[in-house]
Amino acid sequence: MFFKQYVVEGMGCLSYLIGCPMAQKACVVDPKRDVQTYLNDARKNGMQITHVVETHVHADHVSGNMELKSRTGAKICMMKDSPVRFDFVPLDEGDILEFGNASLKIINTPGHTPHGISILITDKSRGEDPWLVLTGDCLFVGDIGRPDLAGAELIHEQVENLYISLHQKLGKLPESTEVFPAHGQGSLCGKGMSAKPSSTIGFEMRHNSIFTLSKEHFKKHLTLSFPERPKSFTHIIETNKKGAPLLDRCPTQRDLSPHQVTALLTQKTVLLDTRDTASFGGVHIPGSINIGLTPQAANWIGMVIDPEADLVLVVTDEQSYSHMCTELHRIGYDNILGYLDGGIAAWQEAGLPIDHLWQIAPMRLQEKIKRKDSLRILDVRTDAERAAGHIQDSIHIPLPRLLKEIPNFPREEEIIITCGVGYRGNIAASFLAHHGFQHVHSVAGGIKAWTNAGLPLTH
Amino acid sequence: MFFKQYVVEGMGCLSYLIGCPMAQKACVVDPKRDVQTYLNDARKNGMQITHVVETHVHADHVSGNMELKSRTGAKICMMKDSPVRFDFVPLDEGDILEFGNASLKIINTPGHTPHGISILITDKSRGEDPWLVLTGDCLFVGDIGRPDLAGAELIHEQVENLYISLHQKLGKLPESTEVFPAHGQGSLCGKGMSAKPSSTIGFEMRHNSIFTLSKEHFKKHLTLSFPERPKSFTHIIETNKKGAPLLDRCPTQRDLSPHQVTALLTQKTVLLDTRDTASFGGVHIPGSINIGLTPQAANWIGMVIDPEADLVLVVTDEQSYSHMCTELHRIGYDNILGYLDGGIAAWQEAGLPIDHLWQIAPMRLQEKIKRKDSLRILDVRTDAERAAGHIQDSIHIPLPRLLKEIPNFPREEEIIITCGVGYRGNIAASFLAHHGFQHVHSVAGGIKAWTNAGLPLTH
Amino acid sequence: MFFKQYVVEGMGCLSYLIGCPMAQKACVVDPKRDVQTYLNDARKNGMQITHVVETHVHADHVSGNMELKSRTGAKICMMKDSPVRFDFVPLDEGDILEFGNASLKIINTPGHTPHGISILITDKSRGEDPWLVLTGDCLFVGDIGRPDLAGAELIHEQVENLYISLHQKLGKLPESTEVFPAHGQGSLCGKGMSAKPSSTIGFEMRHNSIFTLSKEHFKKHLTLSFPERPKSFTHIIETNKKGAPLLDRCPTQRDLSPHQVTALLTQKTVLLDTRDTASFGGVHIPGSINIGLTPQAANWIGMVIDPEADLVLVVTDEQSYSHMCTELHRIGYDNILGYLDGGIAAWQEAGLPIDHLWQIAPMRLQEKIKRKDSLRILDVRTDAERAAGHIQDSIHIPLPRLLKEIPNFPREEEIIITCGVGYRGNIAASFLAHHGFQHVHSVAGGIKAWTNAGLPLTH
Amino acid sequence: MFFKQYVVEGMGCLSYLIGCPMAQKACVVDPKRDVQTYLNDARKNGMQITHVVETHVHADHVSGNMELKSRTGAKICMMKDSPVRFDFVPLDEGDILEFGNASLKIINTPGHTPHGISILITDKSRGEDPWLVLTGDCLFVGDIGRPDLAGAELIHEQVENLYISLHQKLGKLPESTEVFPAHGQGSLCGKGMSAKPSSTIGFEMRHNSIFTLSKEHFKKHLTLSFPERPKSFTHIIETNKKGAPLLDRCPTQRDLSPHQVTALLTQKTVLLDTRDTASFGGVHIPGSINIGLTPQAANWIGMVIDPEADLVLVVTDEQSYSHMCTELHRIGYDNILGYLDGGIAAWQEAGLPIDHLWQIAPMRLQEKIKRKDSLRILDVRTDAERAAGHIQDSIHIPLPRLLKEIPNFPREEEIIITCGVGYRGNIAASFLAHHGFQHVHSVAGGIKAWTNAGLPLTH
Repeated sequence: MFFKQYVVEGMGCLSYLIGCPMAQKACVVDPKRDVQTYLNDARKNGMQITHVVETHVHADHVSGNMELKSRTGAKICMMKDSPVRFDFVPLDEGDILEFGNASLKIINTPGHTPHGISILITDKSRGEDPWLVLTGDCLFVGDIGRPDLAGAELIHEQVENLYISLHQKLGKLPESTEVFPAHGQGSLCGKGMSAKPSSTIGFEMRHNSIFTLSKEHFKKHLTLSFPERPKSFTHIIETNKKGAPLLDRCPTQRDLSPHQVTALLTQKTVLLDTRDTASFGGVHIPGSINIGLTPQAANWIGMVIDPEADLVLVVTDEQSYSHMCTELHRIGYDNILGYLDGGIAAWQEAGLPIDHLWQIAPMRLQEKIKRKDSLRILDVRTDAERAAGHIQDSIHIPLPRLLKEIPNFPREEEIIITCGVGYRGNIAASFLAHHGFQHVHSVAGGIKAWTNAGLPLTH
Repeated sequence: MFFKQYVVEGMGCLSYLIGCPMAQKACVVDPKRDVQTYLNDARKNGMQITHVVETHVHADHVSGNMELKSRTGAKICMMKDSPVRFDFVPLDEGDILEFGNASLKIINTPGHTPHGISILITDKSRGEDPWLVLTGDCLFVGDIGRPDLAGAELIHEQVENLYISLHQKLGKLPESTEVFPAHGQGSLCGKGMSAKPSSTIGFEMRHNSIFTLSKEHFKKHLTLSFPERPKSFTHIIETNKKGAPLLDRCPTQRDLSPHQVTALLTQKTVLLDTRDTASFGGVHIPGSINIGLTPQAANWIGMVIDPEADLVLVVTDEQSYSHMCTELHRIGYDNILGYLDGGIAAWQEAGLPIDHLWQIAPMRLQEKIKRKDSLRILDVRTDAERAAGHIQDSIHIPLPRLLKEIPNFPREEEIIITCGVGYRGNIAASFLAHHGFQHVHSVAGGIKAWTNAGLPLTH
Repeated sequence: MFFKQYVVEGMGCLSYLIGCPMAQKACVVDPKRDVQTYLNDARKNGMQITHVVETHVHADHVSGNMELKSRTGAKICMMKDSPVRFDFVPLDEGDILEFGNASLKIINTPGHTPHGISILITDKSRGEDPWLVLTGDCLFVGDIGRPDLAGAELIHEQVENLYISLHQKLGKLPESTEVFPAHGQGSLCGKGMSAKPSSTIGFEMRHNSIFTLSKEHFKKHLTLSFPERPKSFTHIIETNKKGAPLLDRCPTQRDLSPHQVTALLTQKTVLLDTRDTASFGGVHIPGSINIGLTPQAANWIGMVIDPEADLVLVVTDEQSYSHMCTELHRIGYDNILGYLDGGIAAWQEAGLPIDHLWQIAPMRLQEKIKRKDSLRILDVRTDAERAAGHIQDSIHIPLPRLLKEIPNFPREEEIIITCGVGYRGNIAASFLAHHGFQHVHSVAGGIKAWTNAGLPLTH
Repeated sequence: MFFKQYVVEGMGCLSYLIGCPMAQKACVVDPKRDVQTYLNDARKNGMQITHVVETHVHADHVSGNMELKSRTGAKICMMKDSPVRFDFVPLDEGDILEFGNASLKIINTPGHTPHGISILITDKSRGEDPWLVLTGDCLFVGDIGRPDLAGAELIHEQVENLYISLHQKLGKLPESTEVFPAHGQGSLCGKGMSAKPSSTIGFEMRHNSIFTLSKEHFKKHLTLSFPERPKSFTHIIETNKKGAPLLDRCPTQRDLSPHQVTALLTQKTVLLDTRDTASFGGVHIPGSINIGLTPQAANWIGMVIDPEADLVLVVTDEQSYSHMCTELHRIGYDNILGYLDGGIAAWQEAGLPIDHLWQIAPMRLQEKIKRKDSLRILDVRTDAERAAGHIQDSIHIPLPRLLKEIPNFPREEEIIITCGVGYRGNIAASFLAHHGFQHVHSVAGGIKAWTNAGLPLTH
């Protein structure tokens, strides 16, 4: 049996290529939209991709099922009655798909979505017992799938389903069964996932803090808050239901002159600056949003930017543009108009308006605090990060919340934003500046720098 | 806890970066010699590499411990009394190394080597129970470490040790404990390893065909044949005991003209042609050995070429040269003199002697067989491949055996070599031609092509 | 004044970016179809490309005028009454285009085409005298434009025009005027061009062997033979008259499986194998044509392959595919169906038929000659190369002639082809094999190897 | 004859590969230190590089003669009595070097240096007349070599020599002879060179404003100011006299942590930040010098940084580091300690001190001027740029002068620096900040932006 896990860092999407080189057949489970990597691995191992299996309709990433179908003729398989508007092979509890030695048995595990499945995998060359289970968005490493994405009206049913899926289905598997979920750390489909992208049934039954809850506590817990639902999710779900449009390779020649960019800046256009914090801080186009090109970018884009927006990118080079296009396509942001040719230098030379975002050093902030300057320190980290210590008198608004609800601070107030290492601080600061706040700064290097500079945190 | 497995495809070496981004510390277990990838991942996750842990003295690959020590100042940790000639932190049963949330507990599991250890890992953020175990070269996925590499005189003690390590140590861990060994498919340190690079204690206890043997059968089984011991192993062990020399970047400018190559061709020099089978077949330098640049290359180099040899490479471009240098350094073949500048075209234009290796199509071979041409068909695949079907009247000598013992066929006989897809066939054919066989051919596309062409196999 | 010459190696197409960084304006003269390089240089030097000037309607390469117009809005300028079917700014004798300091004056110099122009360039920052002249396809370095491409019926008029353009127009410029033509070595638009891509009026008047002819000898000379007119020229002229379709980036994902390739092999499809001679020699798809990916490729493609053919490529990697696509687009071969995914190895493994092309070493050929084997040695080099010495008893058919007219040798005869270094030999051999010749071989390394091996040539 | 000119953009160094593919021999004239490009072109054209000819001992770039000698065994040829301390083939007036068809005749043309030569080149396949002349540092396109670099005591003799070399030697060649000098635009070895890197004797005689001077005016003119002599020149001359040390490939793994960088910051160390102006403006290490990675970088490095300094680089990625190393080696700055690993982000996160350089938008500067803020506007452009218009009340100190002589403005004054597009402004501003000026800013996009923003210049 051939088995390989693919990790999209940052978004935490996990997908799988499973097959049998001897039988020359393979399937992909929960493919990402950029599918070349599956094709390459399949060919290197002498296998044809004949099937794509979706554990559910994804909310967080656009599926690569249409790409794979188009490139290989593979059949798309999903739980019967799945709410999609393209043809697929319907699966049901107990169905078995065979790829030579690899045998995949379908287990119905609703709860995250009503039509979610898990896939129990047996390598017949090793024995007839199942070796591992793909748990989709039902059971994660250290967490479980959130039941709320299918809509508030379904939540009680979904919670009930989840409990059953976990305890009556997955929990009945042998303890030694390996667990490979559809998401890992970084995903917004759960909240406490581990950086380690695999586990076992036995370990999760004992150490997954939700799996171990009594039914009563389980229900109570799952009414508590979930990670913010990004703006992108509804659009992604809709795209996955229709079947995503085929990608042509991201156009690399959409170079726009400064004046072409200016002409494109309508109500519907967002200027997305993917440079690092120092560069954006030094000079940027007024109103642009700074989301640096890191694996985390896609998650934040989904929170900040409307999925219907037209995007103009500011990048450091053509390669960065190409990378960012891949990230954007993964979450269904396909309206990419192009990038500023010649970069920010071309913009400056055109004599067009520019803006700055002061990256304040921790020591300078400390001086300002000591001088009792009038300022507001805004901490946009997560609850967990906040709990580990914060700058005295700072206000805590986690970034996802801030992006949902613009705070009603006076627009002319000096606001200094602090986060982990500066990345989210620049997102927050550029977002506030975009909405008219006039004196927003970001702490260079965030709380990490503050701590490394030997400055005190309170609890 | 941060946990990442690194797979060297082909050689099947597995290594691990384990640490804690919050504590900003990490260690590498069983590093390969090209260490940049660990450094990059550590930095991206905000961790310093402070320790290198070796589960044992490796026989199959040169360790990157010296590189990491030189680049980061990391301490090298090994089982106490390990037979190495550099300073290290001695470890013993029960010792614990802590990297923030990640806790590593040493388990003494000799058998593959007398000083082999396993490492039991707990992620304290998830619970005090161990989550996974690094089993070094003791327990593999689907196999166990071979006890013979330490020398024939130790084999009975080693077998006894192995049995105890497996049943008294690893076998006592919770069934749900994940298993991450030091080797996976492709490795020559065991023989039946799975392509899947992880498992669980419970699954291996039930389905690992050696783990499940009674002690008596276990001992009997482990006196059976092992994979061939490559020429490289003694040299690699010696290198790892001394501490490998630091690599400068593989020199990329050692371009040699055809006449410089000619001048270098002494007794001690091997011409290693890394092109694909078709190119080598078309034109090559007489006497050169064809080992194509694939992940499998290092394993075969270790079987064919003397580790003390001086190497001159024939490559398709400078990048291939650089890749092959990395492969060679991984197994301690550091005497790389350079590459033929301008490639085989330059050689041809110099009017120097050339040779061919006819890649015979399956249909043509079938015609020859039907015509009852005088020829010998040599099948160099493994026993398992052979068992699945072979060409009638073909002789079976697995490639590793062929490379050890040149068969005493008449040198002028027509020999047609068949393997899986043609790769090993060209190794065998070029090796035989190197040793004076005059009419050696290789089946284009091997048994795979034969079968795809609809030709019959016998059993 | 900014002035830069661009050389397309192999095809010998020369183009020019001329402008003024202070005035921020520039024009491109005779652009190739892949225009990014002009755009980059213009931007780096702070210039907008506002005009494209064509010295004439090109027969040998597809113009990039439509690409530049689409990317920059540049105006296309040509001699008035030029026979094209798109809008352009008509130019006439004496017209002046100004780009800041750079002043371009139009000179009517018909002869190669009826509407050909030269462009006299003055850098006003250096003085009011012209500094250099772009001579289009009228005057080359060491040659002049061929008058025959416009059609046999116009040839006398064209020859007359050429004489006047050279002697009455260009020959009247100051001797020190630099000459920058539209073609250099490699071009099929003339026959004796120098490798040096610039000269002066004075030097050419004294040392250009055609410029120096008396009118009578001039006329006589220009009725002599011209370089073969490639199959591509009519199609290119037609494309340039219509305006070439805009290129999307060459599709890189048209990976075709061996069976998809097989299905595409209709009457209209040509298999173009771009690998080197050794690889093609070792294994290739029967009937495929070998034109290695070198700067010369485009010239030979234009001779061998019908411009309307559908092309399937055999390449070494995706990058080679992309390069070859650029070469093909330059000469208007836009019907590219894709490439064989997995390369020739995938073909072999599919068990499909293969062929070989024996690259015979000079020494072996010499042995065959001495043994008086029955064979025909075919020399496909140029007249000039042939004149410098050849293998005794070889038959001389220059490659362009061979490609026009398949020789009526018996199909089963052994034919050994010799050329300069082996490149053209493989083109010829694969072409003959394609047309049913059964025993064609190519001399490895060509006459260069023969000579370097110390073997004799006759005259 | 093969003839190719190589342009090092920015520094304006021109070098030449001249040879004969038929004779398979070539020479390089005035090679740059990174010689791979000559080797590649020679091989592609089937030529061996057998000689290196230096037209003189260079002051502005380290010669690649030692590299070529080491790689190919080529002989180094220079004017007899040249003041170098390595073996060379002495040349003298009238000597002829032959490379097949290419014939090189030595002309003694002292003036820039006492042992300078020009090389008259004949392509014997075109005629016995010379076709072109390599004029070294004697005659440039639009300028002549400066006579001052050899030392003040020799200047009158050098001026006299120059006049003779120009009028008695080069001026006697046929007007149509092409001129290929050793330097073009960007070089500091002259001051008015054209962007066009070739010309003719006739054109220069008529339009080169110095060539046309009477002897009296010539002498007067050549006592006028020269371009600033960079700090690097003495060191480069000395290096070229000794023979430059062979380069190993620039070490790419000298990654330094923020704390390693801190530890290296001694008196002798210079922090060279090669990022663009916006990035440097946003965040940089206090005291670092900003010279962005552009073709101009080497010229400014030679002016700002002591050639004996130890360098630590701040770069955007490893590739930039590698490029900047090439630039540094070209001018003999070989003491490169490494680069800040993780870039400026790593520095920020370490909580170490940071600084900003405000890139002020033209409109904002205009507002400040109108508000009559107390500030000093410093224009660091050249005299010629200044003459074309400047911001009212700005002070003019060309950058090279500023770098020589720190102005005695009060350190606490607000200084706003303006240049062409912002590049030199950041060099100046970082240089002044390095020397203790506390409020230095740079105009974003320089005078180009100012003008494009529609703001007025005065004259």
